[in-house]
Amino acid sequence: MENKAQVAILMGSDSDWPLVVKAVDVLNKFGVCTDVRILSAHRTPGKVREYIQTAEENGVKVFIGAAGKAAHLPGVIASLTTLPVIGIPIKSSATGGLDALLSIVQMPAGIPVATVAIDGSENAALLAVQMFSVTDESLANKLAEFKREMNDKILAADKELQEEIKDI
Amino acid sequence: MENKAQVAILMGSDSDWPLVVKAVDVLNKFGVCTDVRILSAHRTPGKVREYIQTAEENGVKVFIGAAGKAAHLPGVIASLTTLPVIGIPIKSSATGGLDALLSIVQMPAGIPVATVAIDGSENAALLAVQMFSVTDESLANKLAEFKREMNDKILAADKELQEEIKDI
Amino acid sequence: MENKAQVAILMGSDSDWPLVVKAVDVLNKFGVCTDVRILSAHRTPGKVREYIQTAEENGVKVFIGAAGKAAHLPGVIASLTTLPVIGIPIKSSATGGLDALLSIVQMPAGIPVATVAIDGSENAALLAVQMFSVTDESLANKLAEFKREMNDKILAADKELQEEIKDI
Amino acid sequence: MENKAQVAILMGSDSDWPLVVKAVDVLNKFGVCTDVRILSAHRTPGKVREYIQTAEENGVKVFIGAAGKAAHLPGVIASLTTLPVIGIPIKSSATGGLDALLSIVQMPAGIPVATVAIDGSENAALLAVQMFSVTDESLANKLAEFKREMNDKILAADKELQEEIKDI
Amino acid sequence: MENKAQVAILMGSDSDWPLVVKAVDVLNKFGVCTDVRILSAHRTPGKVREYIQTAEENGVKVFIGAAGKAAHLPGVIASLTTLPVIGIPIKSSATGGLDALLSIVQMPAGIPVATVAIDGSENAALLAVQMFSVTDESLANKLAEFKREMNDKILAADKELQEEIKDI
Amino acid sequence: MENKAQVAILMGSDSDWPLVVKAVDVLNKFGVCTDVRILSAHRTPGKVREYIQTAEENGVKVFIGAAGKAAHLPGVIASLTTLPVIGIPIKSSATGGLDALLSIVQMPAGIPVATVAIDGSENAALLAVQMFSVTDESLANKLAEFKREMNDKILAADKELQEEIKDI
Amino acid sequence: MENKAQVAILMGSDSDWPLVVKAVDVLNKFGVCTDVRILSAHRTPGKVREYIQTAEENGVKVFIGAAGKAAHLPGVIASLTTLPVIGIPIKSSATGGLDALLSIVQMPAGIPVATVAIDGSENAALLAVQMFSVTDESLANKLAEFKREMNDKILAADKELQEEIKDI
Amino acid sequence: MENKAQVAILMGSDSDWPLVVKAVDVLNKFGVCTDVRILSAHRTPGKVREYIQTAEENGVKVFIGAAGKAAHLPGVIASLTTLPVIGIPIKSSATGGLDALLSIVQMPAGIPVATVAIDGSENAALLAVQMFSVTDESLANKLAEFKREMNDKILAADKELQEEIKDI
Repeated sequence: MENKAQVAILMGSDSDWPLVVKAVDVLNKFGVCTDVRILSAHRTPGKVREYIQTAEENGVKVFIGAAGKAAHLPGVIASLTTLPVIGIPIKSSATGGLDALLSIVQMPAGIPVATVAIDGSENAALLAVQMFSVTDESLANKLAEFKREMNDKILAADKELQEEIKDI
Repeated sequence: MENKAQVAILMGSDSDWPLVVKAVDVLNKFGVCTDVRILSAHRTPGKVREYIQTAEENGVKVFIGAAGKAAHLPGVIASLTTLPVIGIPIKSSATGGLDALLSIVQMPAGIPVATVAIDGSENAALLAVQMFSVTDESLANKLAEFKREMNDKILAADKELQEEIKDI
Repeated sequence: MENKAQVAILMGSDSDWPLVVKAVDVLNKFGVCTDVRILSAHRTPGKVREYIQTAEENGVKVFIGAAGKAAHLPGVIASLTTLPVIGIPIKSSATGGLDALLSIVQMPAGIPVATVAIDGSENAALLAVQMFSVTDESLANKLAEFKREMNDKILAADKELQEEIKDI
Repeated sequence: MENKAQVAILMGSDSDWPLVVKAVDVLNKFGVCTDVRILSAHRTPGKVREYIQTAEENGVKVFIGAAGKAAHLPGVIASLTTLPVIGIPIKSSATGGLDALLSIVQMPAGIPVATVAIDGSENAALLAVQMFSVTDESLANKLAEFKREMNDKILAADKELQEEIKDI
Repeated sequence: MENKAQVAILMGSDSDWPLVVKAVDVLNKFGVCTDVRILSAHRTPGKVREYIQTAEENGVKVFIGAAGKAAHLPGVIASLTTLPVIGIPIKSSATGGLDALLSIVQMPAGIPVATVAIDGSENAALLAVQMFSVTDESLANKLAEFKREMNDKILAADKELQEEIKDI
Repeated sequence: MENKAQVAILMGSDSDWPLVVKAVDVLNKFGVCTDVRILSAHRTPGKVREYIQTAEENGVKVFIGAAGKAAHLPGVIASLTTLPVIGIPIKSSATGGLDALLSIVQMPAGIPVATVAIDGSENAALLAVQMFSVTDESLANKLAEFKREMNDKILAADKELQEEIKDI
Repeated sequence: MENKAQVAILMGSDSDWPLVVKAVDVLNKFGVCTDVRILSAHRTPGKVREYIQTAEENGVKVFIGAAGKAAHLPGVIASLTTLPVIGIPIKSSATGGLDALLSIVQMPAGIPVATVAIDGSENAALLAVQMFSVTDESLANKLAEFKREMNDKILAADKELQEEIKDI
Repeated sequence: MENKAQVAILMGSDSDWPLVVKAVDVLNKFGVCTDVRILSAHRTPGKVREYIQTAEENGVKVFIGAAGKAAHLPGVIASLTTLPVIGIPIKSSATGGLDALLSIVQMPAGIPVATVAIDGSENAALLAVQMFSVTDESLANKLAEFKREMNDKILAADKELQEEIKDI
């Protein structure tokens, strides 16, 4: 793994990559070094354990787990560390993602998983950045800038709409 | 653990015992030796791993896991063994047990958990007995007898109802 | 029926075949002889009864039932035998498969159905293999090998991802 | 069974009797002779078959099945007869009765079950009466009278409310 | 309306016709004369009232209402007649048809609607035929024949599958 | 009915009164004259029609309908008037009020019902007041005052909490 | 903003425009002047506040908010005004729109949002028109005309169906 | 507010206090200074804004919002800050807390809320502690100790169970 990674993202299958890559992009944009791995809570439980321990030793400070259906990966990570763990419920073909959401969010007392929206990989990355921003002023400033950009995009879209409507 | 146990039942908290004891009673009734343990997928993941390995070495052939909310215990057991794993979803205060049901039943391909009804501990035990009965004629006969008894109880209840109605 | 079949798979309609064939493939891979039939709990209840009895006499040891909507087939099989019955809930156009899942898993005390995930036909087959592996060391070894292969596939996918990311 | 019964009501357990008796009361009120039995689709499948056949031979014209959880009883009856079958989903402790509702109403094409509300035993009885009223003018008149009475009760309750409000 | 119609089918919009026509086809197959109308509980409440009264006077004996979303049509018909009313919940784009199912099946005591599966128009028609068959031996015979045909179709599909598998 | 009533509240049963009275209290508090009636969409459809027409003639400007289960009352009112109709879904014993919510809110295009929260009778009343406040400055002022009071109550509760915590 | 707008419609993203434009069309048809804006409760909370205040000062009398997922926009508007607020839950890819529906309709006592069906933008507009019609006879007349047209369209569709069926 | 508070907990009503106090207890146990306030997103939106700004200026680094039903409070906080926001969905009488869960977790891209289980106030507090532990070794050590204690409690409960069973 990358020695300087601060965030580690785990997913159980390469089919989750198109969703997870959006989290990687956000973290890259904020300059947060990230290690991203395909490791399965159910198919490679030993490798998950090894990885969590190594990652912690190498300086990873936040974990993100993305999983669908009986989405145990984030909870399994949380059982192996005391660092913050963020869970992304992935929608699969049945039940609209409700299975993954409940499997991730309904953790027992003592082992929290910070759960974001179904398929909400950007927000998982942002949440990780926010956690670092608590003691990293540079990241806090970047988040403020990001918030302004979101604000500006909405205002620009609104302006465009007003033009469009006027022309009607 | 009991050296001769064929079934191991795991639950994550002593609050699950009033439900789990019903499974123990059924297994006792069928003369299937059982080891029952409080071990948590999230709070004692290492102990769960140790236990599964020891249990297998000591001759346990079927695992039963009972869990509520983000009910990972049965799936975690299944990730650590190739023996059959039976899952009991436990209803907790919110969502009517749907969270535990989906967290247990929606396992990914390759790692099955044989799921029974919400709070269905008797059926978890019976399913374990059925698995043994495949090669144990004595248990098969006991199951047939059990089925006859269920049948007779229904008929007795029906008879009693007919008497009750007649008196009205 | 095949005289030497150990597992019988029943489905209610030929439209279920594309899903069920995945279970047959898994059982074939493990060398477990399988009889697969189209028989409906609602449209051919008499034939289901006849078949279950004949199958038991011919040595079938595990039943698998696949059904959608008000998915009664696995429960009806379970009412006719004391052998283990595995249920596959099939997703149909409405309610995301929740109807079939609840109709199969919520069995009353005394009549268990070992339920797998919605559309989880591979896991139904694996669960049957696991049941046989309890007393069949050869199958137990094959399952261990299967688990290693799954592990290796994940690691290979992870390795490929690391290459892919490096190139970016 | 009562030789002249026109309606047969089946329930799977004596615990369903407090709900089912409301249907019996409605049928009695309309003078429709009823046979009520405790017979289980899963625990006494053979007795259910025998009963349906005998009931049909003895002149039963409509079946009512009441069941909770994986509520197969109405569908099993429907698989054994071409007479109308009415299903009452019973609420049990988990999922608010949604399991029983979906298990009863989502029947496949060709085998209808006329489903009423969760715990809707009075309406099951009324529906049976309505079916007979199609060719029984006396029952049609009683239903019209029943409808007027419902109307009058509402108007009386409204009148009482107006008095109550005035006094405030 | 057709003077001799025994069944009246109402739908709220012409977009429901592709679903409703399947019910008409079944009723035609059984020789049950049917009047089918587009009338909306919400958009043409007066016309619904007029129609129900006229239909009753002209000899209609069973009503079928098909509706989606807040599916009030079957319940509104039931409020206007004491004849049996059958409800077909139609799946629309959101909530998988659960809205229509609950809006139709959860009728208050006193006003039953015989509810069939989501999009279950064939079963609505069959249920109407079953109601008539209570006093019409010819229809009872046709239903028995229909049941045999369903049985035969399943057996033929099974036979075909056995051939197909053998060839593999 | 009260000749000067501006709002009419309908409920289907006197059992809904303890919930509905909260709406009456709010309307009284704002000085909006209210007529409240027990009339059932299903049991007294003719009386509902009569009442809506009379109410409109007498100057009622907003209707509120409260209903549980297959909650048709608000939709039926909306089919009979072009005045605003507010719907209150009432929670009954099964499904947590989801049945009533979907039956009320999922109205087809052309016939809106302004739906408030499950058991949200106060908000139904406030919404009616808000509608009048559009052209009634006095009511607008009272609403602003009501909003300030809510604000003040929260601040008072917060202050009390700060005291309570300090003492610990 | 348009100085004479009576209704303001807010949406959180330009991707909601294809749905929202249907509400604008209905309001235009009724001659109700409308201001439509892209403003986000989460991304531009300050601009939402500014806009609500300005809109009120400029004479807007009814607000409509359209939002998906954790759909806070209508509730946020309602927290900032005492004018009526109408909420349109928008279906997004997961959970069938249930998330948006519950996020909008389940408002706490004191802050109502008049909720319409999932994706029910036409009805949101009609509801706004109905609110104005309480004191605007001209709009009341237009609504009555609109209701007649809906009625006529249904009757025309029915007539066409009768022709179509006759030809079969 | 307490000048040295690192975490601020907001709830919308004093009725949430019995749940929220559990989070305060956990934070106290870890020595994390906490400010807890009753402020409502809907009833006191201005005070929420003021408070968030003041809290940030005074050094608060993590916000926790607890809310039920249309639970907007955590999302509203998140719209006003770039610091991490943790949301606790509170179960109310209807829908089993699903409304609050979806209203909190389904946030749009750009504005994450770290959601914990329904009524999961302890975990919300722990998650806040974990965030600080990223750069606070003392807290990291306390978390490790806390994890060991949880582990020990489970093992003690297991030991007690073994004693209890032995005595039977």
